[in-house]
Amino acid sequence: MKNDLFLRALKGEKVDRPPVWMMRQAGRYLPDFMKIKRKYDFFTRCQTPELATEITLMPINQVGPDAAIIFSDILVVLQAMGIKVEMKDNIGPWINSPIRKNDDIKKVRVPEVKAELDYVFKAIKMSKKELNENVPLIGFAGSPWTLLCYAVQGSGSKDFNLAKEFCFSQSEYSKILLQKITETTISYLKEQVNSGVNAIQIFDSWGGLLSPIDYEVFSWKYIDQIIKELSPLIPVIVFGKGCWFHLNEMSKSKVSAIGIDWTCSARNARYLTGGKITLQGNLDPSKLLSPIYEIKKSVKNMIDEFGKDNYIVNLGHGILPNTPVDNAKAFIDSVKEYNS
Amino acid sequence: MKNDLFLRALKGEKVDRPPVWMMRQAGRYLPDFMKIKRKYDFFTRCQTPELATEITLMPINQVGPDAAIIFSDILVVLQAMGIKVEMKDNIGPWINSPIRKNDDIKKVRVPEVKAELDYVFKAIKMSKKELNENVPLIGFAGSPWTLLCYAVQGSGSKDFNLAKEFCFSQSEYSKILLQKITETTISYLKEQVNSGVNAIQIFDSWGGLLSPIDYEVFSWKYIDQIIKELSPLIPVIVFGKGCWFHLNEMSKSKVSAIGIDWTCSARNARYLTGGKITLQGNLDPSKLLSPIYEIKKSVKNMIDEFGKDNYIVNLGHGILPNTPVDNAKAFIDSVKEYNS
Repeated sequence: MKNDLFLRALKGEKVDRPPVWMMRQAGRYLPDFMKIKRKYDFFTRCQTPELATEITLMPINQVGPDAAIIFSDILVVLQAMGIKVEMKDNIGPWINSPIRKNDDIKKVRVPEVKAELDYVFKAIKMSKKELNENVPLIGFAGSPWTLLCYAVQGSGSKDFNLAKEFCFSQSEYSKILLQKITETTISYLKEQVNSGVNAIQIFDSWGGLLSPIDYEVFSWKYIDQIIKELSPLIPVIVFGKGCWFHLNEMSKSKVSAIGIDWTCSARNARYLTGGKITLQGNLDPSKLLSPIYEIKKSVKNMIDEFGKDNYIVNLGHGILPNTPVDNAKAFIDSVKEYNS
Repeated sequence: MKNDLFLRALKGEKVDRPPVWMMRQAGRYLPDFMKIKRKYDFFTRCQTPELATEITLMPINQVGPDAAIIFSDILVVLQAMGIKVEMKDNIGPWINSPIRKNDDIKKVRVPEVKAELDYVFKAIKMSKKELNENVPLIGFAGSPWTLLCYAVQGSGSKDFNLAKEFCFSQSEYSKILLQKITETTISYLKEQVNSGVNAIQIFDSWGGLLSPIDYEVFSWKYIDQIIKELSPLIPVIVFGKGCWFHLNEMSKSKVSAIGIDWTCSARNARYLTGGKITLQGNLDPSKLLSPIYEIKKSVKNMIDEFGKDNYIVNLGHGILPNTPVDNAKAFIDSVKEYNS
């Protein structure tokens, strides 16, 4: 690997400067992505390996992060399980027949991922070839809890109240669904590893909607199964948005790194995770809408606070569509210019 | 005051059991509220003291909490400042001409609250009379940051990205707006005190969208001004949803109590606030959709963990519209049945 900074940070090795990448770095803030978006619908982009590869490579060439992440979506796993997901303009994910009762769960299958999600594995192989060992490629999946949120709610939501109602009122059934998603996700990620990804990240985007006790029961229990299966094969990063309350528990697992959002200061994050494990984050994506000199200052402060080692610079969530490309580039560049 | 449990808890006095009330207790989960809602639109309900009083009293008679909270909305302050707010069906708050530039801010006025918000003060006086010193009445206001979120975004939002963009890219202007809202809010709350409320709560519903540093700059600085002006007059409660990272700072202010959401365990909350100050919260409102025996168990555990003293039982956010009244009642009753 020509640039192995990211992999070295995951191993906890000393580095001259921390590596950097951005969640959703192959996203709507890039004008070239928007061109593709106007021509092909969401799932066509995910399911056509040539397109997914082109999109995966786009930020590498245009803003220069130290790692690529395969272009796909966490919801492809639900589709593979027989839950029909659409992506509606101005609405987002949409499921016409969401999961609401035991009969619905019975119909959900644990699929042969190799057949059902072949397009992802092809995109990974193609991207690896195009990347030509310049930077590592990250594979990913949503957490079982986060996927349950969409499967039950049937759409995005600010509080996923129907998903939570389902879990709290039909607790035993929800656990059957969570277990099915977990098993599918494990096979899916193992096949990503076979296809060549260099690390994987688990996105628990909605973990922060749960209390610490419920997080343990409905989310972490399943994430931890995935970590146990995958960590012997590959470095695993877990990112739980709003899950500061579980950082200590996460740090005791077999993960190689933990993603942090911007509500948790570097100091709190280091304290809660015991000070040694590699952390990833955590600039508020809205801060990329500040003047460029402010972005540079924020990045410098952030690295000083996290420390250059055991650290991967990132945003605290996905980059916003209205971010100027120059600002994204300033974010990346200021990491490359860092000296302590 | 016949039932002064709530006021005693705010003073930190020893009690046999903690007091209990619920955020949004006069809300859509009550069938009688829905009857009024079908007859009168949102702002008519707020602006008609007889209706606001009837709604304020409704939960006192039907589910029996230890405090009433005046029925109103945080957005009436923006209206009084000359920003036209509508409440749209299925959308929520809506502002046709949101604040986006300095010229918009110049037009925003710091009003004579006594004239502009007279209907609130009338509703308070009428509610106090109807309550007949049975339980205390809580007044409230939104935090300046939370009101700015709506004023700039123009509607509800999951991330208030436009509001944040405004603050991060036009920082100096945003501070002028925040200061105007702060001054209006101080007069507004002082007049609520003159009208007879027994305590006030400041709702920082969107504080948790900010990083700790930005929270200090764009939210806490203004909340603290309000606390300094009001705390010599009346007990002040501050509730910052998702603001666990600022609990320590909050506990050093002149507040009488701090609201906690369900992502912060009792143990963390006590630790972060130094162990002495009165805390209020924090059951996940979705938990009221569990079977009643589960609700009772959760309440018992919660009181055991917070401790019966220096504690006000509440939800961690507003009660959900789809909560069965019996479940809300079970929540209140299990506090009344508590013995350690």
